[in-house]
Amino acid sequence: MANRPPADIGAPLAEVDTPALVIDLDAFERNLTALPRLLQGRPARLRPHSKTHKSPIIARKQIALGAVGVCCQKVGEAEALVAGGVDDVLIANEIVGASKLRRLAALARQARIAVCVDDAGNITELEDAASELDARVTVLVEINVGSNRCGVAPGQAALDLARVVTASKHLRFDGLQAYHGSAQHIRNHDERRGAIERAIASARETKRLIEQAGIACPRVTGAGTGSFAFEAASDLYTELQCGSYVFMDADYNKNLDADGKARPQFEQSLYVWTTVMSRPTPDRAIVDAGLKALSVDSGMPAVPDFPQATFARASDEHGRLDISEAVDGLDVGDKLRLIPGHCDPTVNLYDWYVGIRRNRVECLWPVAARGALT
Amino acid sequence: MANRPPADIGAPLAEVDTPALVIDLDAFERNLTALPRLLQGRPARLRPHSKTHKSPIIARKQIALGAVGVCCQKVGEAEALVAGGVDDVLIANEIVGASKLRRLAALARQARIAVCVDDAGNITELEDAASELDARVTVLVEINVGSNRCGVAPGQAALDLARVVTASKHLRFDGLQAYHGSAQHIRNHDERRGAIERAIASARETKRLIEQAGIACPRVTGAGTGSFAFEAASDLYTELQCGSYVFMDADYNKNLDADGKARPQFEQSLYVWTTVMSRPTPDRAIVDAGLKALSVDSGMPAVPDFPQATFARASDEHGRLDISEAVDGLDVGDKLRLIPGHCDPTVNLYDWYVGIRRNRVECLWPVAARGALT
Repeated sequence: MANRPPADIGAPLAEVDTPALVIDLDAFERNLTALPRLLQGRPARLRPHSKTHKSPIIARKQIALGAVGVCCQKVGEAEALVAGGVDDVLIANEIVGASKLRRLAALARQARIAVCVDDAGNITELEDAASELDARVTVLVEINVGSNRCGVAPGQAALDLARVVTASKHLRFDGLQAYHGSAQHIRNHDERRGAIERAIASARETKRLIEQAGIACPRVTGAGTGSFAFEAASDLYTELQCGSYVFMDADYNKNLDADGKARPQFEQSLYVWTTVMSRPTPDRAIVDAGLKALSVDSGMPAVPDFPQATFARASDEHGRLDISEAVDGLDVGDKLRLIPGHCDPTVNLYDWYVGIRRNRVECLWPVAARGALT
Repeated sequence: MANRPPADIGAPLAEVDTPALVIDLDAFERNLTALPRLLQGRPARLRPHSKTHKSPIIARKQIALGAVGVCCQKVGEAEALVAGGVDDVLIANEIVGASKLRRLAALARQARIAVCVDDAGNITELEDAASELDARVTVLVEINVGSNRCGVAPGQAALDLARVVTASKHLRFDGLQAYHGSAQHIRNHDERRGAIERAIASARETKRLIEQAGIACPRVTGAGTGSFAFEAASDLYTELQCGSYVFMDADYNKNLDADGKARPQFEQSLYVWTTVMSRPTPDRAIVDAGLKALSVDSGMPAVPDFPQATFARASDEHGRLDISEAVDGLDVGDKLRLIPGHCDPTVNLYDWYVGIRRNRVECLWPVAARGALT
């Protein structure tokens, strides 16, 4: 049931049908190399989060540039990555239920698979699945470092789970998942740094406690595009899970530096390519990208090429641009770029990436793990 | 690249993997029959909007119960419907660009296809495409009846376009698209009725003007699940485009009756089936349905079976339930139902419907037009 690609390779951008998910390949490639360069000399390795792109093609490019492997959130994503040639995957999430755990164990016989835990019963189920398939699974204990999502409290609770993992024959305890998701989007630089410094302190103390109990805790993994500089500077984190840096989005572009300026370290490389489908009044243009082409959970998309236009409202299949003054290039049939508010769930709405260089379609990459929910 | 179904036919609901899109088939079938019953004796025919379900299987059930055909928003949706055995489709939207118009014209050789227009240049392009393929396309002029989205102003502008259509050899003018989308979600009954009454007056006057010019205008089509009773009572609308009535959602369930009570005419039949994947604190449960499993544009999902729990926050792959008091049935591994805030874009995130009756999987239906963006 995959949909046809919205373009042929070699076609000019103007001919790409809309809405489409387009990558500016030059900007994308600069992002791919920029982050490893920023991390040079740091002990932390890059383990990019593939929940952003859901593409083994992009994951392999990241690994070729030095990433230790990638992470993902779902067993189905891990399956798509391994099938696409990725051999080191951290499922940076808890996996619950016998059928998913059996798939995870089976995958661990094909590739290096690690997973997070925050519950003793879940560890038992994971051990049972690994035992049934005679698989070895690497396990990280997730601690809550401030996002109040998954993860046990730092400290003793984490040590207790580490002991359960260590006592499980088919599981190998390797360290801590300490990801502060909500801190990624704190606009103010010092507040963002403060949140991450508290996370680092929690993780450091937990690692100390575990090692003091005689359990090796070599890996501390976490961080994202909004905060990685702080974790990288900690000398505690061994892996950084940045994902959005390859594409960026309107939300990440708003994070502020120490001087109060928004100065993104990465370029916007991902766009939704859309057509003006109606121009009923001078102050309104309707484009063909709405809620099924753009995730608006983190705000409306930006309209980078038309400062006179604001994306004001999304309905299922329509976007409304409010236009403050006369503007060329927004007539019926004209095409334009939008910057999605939030790249990850926007990517998940598409079957294809359309890679653009010098205004031509250079490649078509499937969003291989699109809809990999389980 | 379609994902595997999350269950086998015959399996108990408890074994359906999560997150999954489940239909309570009994409630769904009651909804399917309830709306035609409510319309008995009215001249308006039902033309359900398939952008809700994206399924020719469901469309055929609606037609078998008396619907005159269905509508959709995209050429790709119309292609999936026709391929699935639906022979009368209104694309209740403007279709712009030569490649889409050629596909539309080709489809009009296989089935009865109608489309909306609000621009003279677009009518010329549509005529060119129909001429090239020697196809006949039925055309409705869309008027803006209050949503401020697509559509020309009611009155003279619509007549002008009707004349252009009438002068086009391969196009047949059939009437007006007069859909007030934003009125569907006005909570207050009298305000909602007022908005629709103004829409009806606009459409009535426009039809009069067109007929006075000697152009037949037999069809007036529009309405939705939130407002159809008003349009049905108008003796103007000949078709009603309700879509959400088959499933309902948390947003539609909040619309108020004349007495200020929320008393939905249709039952909630669509759920997201989810698993508690983490229970880190007594007041917090994390489920495996986040932004990629639920559209939150119209608000967070409801938690119908646990009044002590509120779906407080969605991140990409997680939902956070805040729990006000001790509750059984929300331990790690427990599964529960969520009512999506907005059914249409939620359905578009899934490849499969899992039809449930008496707690067993009775059917697996593909979301055939999932991701049909172009």
